[in-house]
Amino acid sequence: MTLRGFDRVGGLREFPEAVKEFHGLAAPGVLIGGFMVDMAVESLPDRAAIQAIVETSTCLVDAVQLLTPCTVGNGRARIIDGGRLALTLYDGKTLEGVRVFLDARKLDGFSRIKKWFFGEPLEEQGSKELLQSEILEAGRRVLSMEQVTVRRTAATGPKARPRRICQRCGQPYRGRDPASCLFCRAPYYASKK
Amino acid sequence: MTLRGFDRVGGLREFPEAVKEFHGLAAPGVLIGGFMVDMAVESLPDRAAIQAIVETSTCLVDAVQLLTPCTVGNGRARIIDGGRLALTLYDGKTLEGVRVFLDARKLDGFSRIKKWFFGEPLEEQGSKELLQSEILEAGRRVLSMEQVTVRRTAATGPKARPRRICQRCGQPYRGRDPASCLFCRAPYYASKK
Repeated sequence: MTLRGFDRVGGLREFPEAVKEFHGLAAPGVLIGGFMVDMAVESLPDRAAIQAIVETSTCLVDAVQLLTPCTVGNGRARIIDGGRLALTLYDGKTLEGVRVFLDARKLDGFSRIKKWFFGEPLEEQGSKELLQSEILEAGRRVLSMEQVTVRRTAATGPKARPRRICQRCGQPYRGRDPASCLFCRAPYYASKK
Repeated sequence: MTLRGFDRVGGLREFPEAVKEFHGLAAPGVLIGGFMVDMAVESLPDRAAIQAIVETSTCLVDAVQLLTPCTVGNGRARIIDGGRLALTLYDGKTLEGVRVFLDARKLDGFSRIKKWFFGEPLEEQGSKELLQSEILEAGRRVLSMEQVTVRRTAATGPKARPRRICQRCGQPYRGRDPASCLFCRAPYYASKK
């Protein structure tokens, strides 16, 4: 059995340090994401081939990469960037799973999380540490979960495309266009020296 | 000084195991990616605030996430999916960096890597292990590197957008549309129970 959730980094107590190491800092979105993932994996059968969909491009996916076998590189963690602090973990075979989200209706007792979530400034002394403590104290109490079935089209990653040699730059690429690679059709992201 | 390259996982010898642990298997693209990252970081100044652009959505980004402080979640690893086995590491402040790629012109002595790269079947007994050995033996010899300056537009991640409450589903989201979130405008990726 592969470890999942907080167990994967040695427990909840070790989680903030693991986030710091991987993500660079114990960012609020990754800490909350940890509770989201830990809650979601409990609802999946032990032998589920976990896959993930994350609904924002910031922070959250790192909680998934730390606490599940799903990474962006292995294609099991997919980002659909709708700017929502929510994620779905599901069984890649049955497509059955759970969606967990930070529930804005549950934030009334957690003023610092609420301020952070809605982008209001946290001005008190030591606000970063206080926010972190509030997140760890709140745990799952600010989350909600629902059962979902993922559509097959959303679950399927990009199909392998044939490798070709670009007729403009001469470099190999995979892509639908038979003549030239993405970078030769669009402005290149960097200029060469 | 933050560790970079193979040093980050304890050395080249430990790298395949670290890949297996994070990525799920010691995939050829991540192993080659390790040499690409290790070669690239050497060319960056010690104190460079490393950022990464990866030119394919498969495998390679996990080498970056393992061997540099750049992750998808912290925004320092960015994917521009052009289907090329290439990556750029650069200084986030100066935008100066290096692009490393698997050089198809250097594959003649490495028949298994060549077959794998161009999607031809590897049919011999134990082909997976033989391909892995060939990758570790080849190391940097199948790679090429060039100096590049990343365009500011490519280096900049998505800007923080205001958090709003979606008028259709009632959930908070960040997005340009002032009325509804991405998921209410497009088919939802999952159906609820």
